[in-house]
Amino acid sequence: MTIIIHGLFMSTGTAKVLATLLEKEVDDYILRPVDIFSLAHKKPEYLALQPFGLIPAIQDGDLTLFESRAIARYICDKYAGQGTALLGKSLVERAKVGQWLEVESHNFHPPISTLIFELVVKSYKGLITDESAVEANLSKLSNVLDVYEQHLSTNMYLAGNFYSLADLSHVSFLHYLINVAHRGEVVTSKKHVKAWWENISSRPAWKGWRAGLASPEFQLAGSKLNGKVV
Amino acid sequence: MTIIIHGLFMSTGTAKVLATLLEKEVDDYILRPVDIFSLAHKKPEYLALQPFGLIPAIQDGDLTLFESRAIARYICDKYAGQGTALLGKSLVERAKVGQWLEVESHNFHPPISTLIFELVVKSYKGLITDESAVEANLSKLSNVLDVYEQHLSTNMYLAGNFYSLADLSHVSFLHYLINVAHRGEVVTSKKHVKAWWENISSRPAWKGWRAGLASPEFQLAGSKLNGKVV
Repeated sequence: MTIIIHGLFMSTGTAKVLATLLEKEVDDYILRPVDIFSLAHKKPEYLALQPFGLIPAIQDGDLTLFESRAIARYICDKYAGQGTALLGKSLVERAKVGQWLEVESHNFHPPISTLIFELVVKSYKGLITDESAVEANLSKLSNVLDVYEQHLSTNMYLAGNFYSLADLSHVSFLHYLINVAHRGEVVTSKKHVKAWWENISSRPAWKGWRAGLASPEFQLAGSKLNGKVV
Repeated sequence: MTIIIHGLFMSTGTAKVLATLLEKEVDDYILRPVDIFSLAHKKPEYLALQPFGLIPAIQDGDLTLFESRAIARYICDKYAGQGTALLGKSLVERAKVGQWLEVESHNFHPPISTLIFELVVKSYKGLITDESAVEANLSKLSNVLDVYEQHLSTNMYLAGNFYSLADLSHVSFLHYLINVAHRGEVVTSKKHVKAWWENISSRPAWKGWRAGLASPEFQLAGSKLNGKVV
């Protein structure tokens, strides 16, 4: 059964789902672009899939599912027997992955999502960036990453010494901060966080996404990954 | 092995962990109060357990774990064979529970946590409530609960027709909004949301918590549940 992903290649949440599919070696999926610029995500047919009007959402046979973090977990659960063991292999590993997924949600995401909104989304829309909000949220993010720095001084990855969904979940936002907004000092000034970022962002799933973002087809189709154009 | 919960009985996150333990029929635990009023959660010995300085955190043998949502999942995972099947019983049920847990985190939690801060925490500390923030967040919360209203018109619980961790995760915040701040019109004015709230908050785990909150021992010890005083 082909999984249909309703989203946008450039969206941080959609990117998380695509990277999870690649890590889990699932290739029977298509990306169906949702034109958020014409507010397609607020129209009745999309709201029937995702009642909060956010991307992404997926359809897998009879199942409709939304929230990128829940979709990523579902893919890991359904394809537990193949690809990277993104949720860990034991009770304790799963607990640690779960912990760092919640750290991503509740410590990392609030400041970095505000930063990407101010620095990337507003710029894209021709709106004025609020520099005081940028400074305040860079400071909050730096405090969060100070904890990561300490943790990563004795752990190669967030959940321990294995790559997990917790690491994967940080990449798309950090990409926009570092490579698009060019405000990545908060990452690159911290030795272990910088090494972790370089490690996790160089995995094939993320290199494919970045190559796709840079390709001319992306601008037209909104989606290109791993040879698949939809 | 006795699970040690570092938290506060009155904290919404600690309450979530306690309710999960009750639903999973786990009774080998103790609650060790963290005196946040004297900033015990910002001192080195607590930061060694929870580097972000937030409650709760648990110790279960050699495992230290924080973030209430991750702790609740861990308890469900460890005790999968007993008590209420809070994460669901099939791939699709687990997916739906996961989806609504993320809705709680990313749609419900931001406005209601601001409301509880403005209406309960500030009041407790003798600070002035920002009524414009209250109105703005009541409006946001109402919009979120409008989606719940539609969903609950054809589903008894969030993830379908079974009680899950997704439902459980809403109770402590809603308790403070409805029963402490007395600003629950946003819930009680919606027929299906009101019925859902009355259903999920009347389960023994939550009745025990509310009784504990009202008991004199709670004021002294910071913890009393199910006959256990620590």
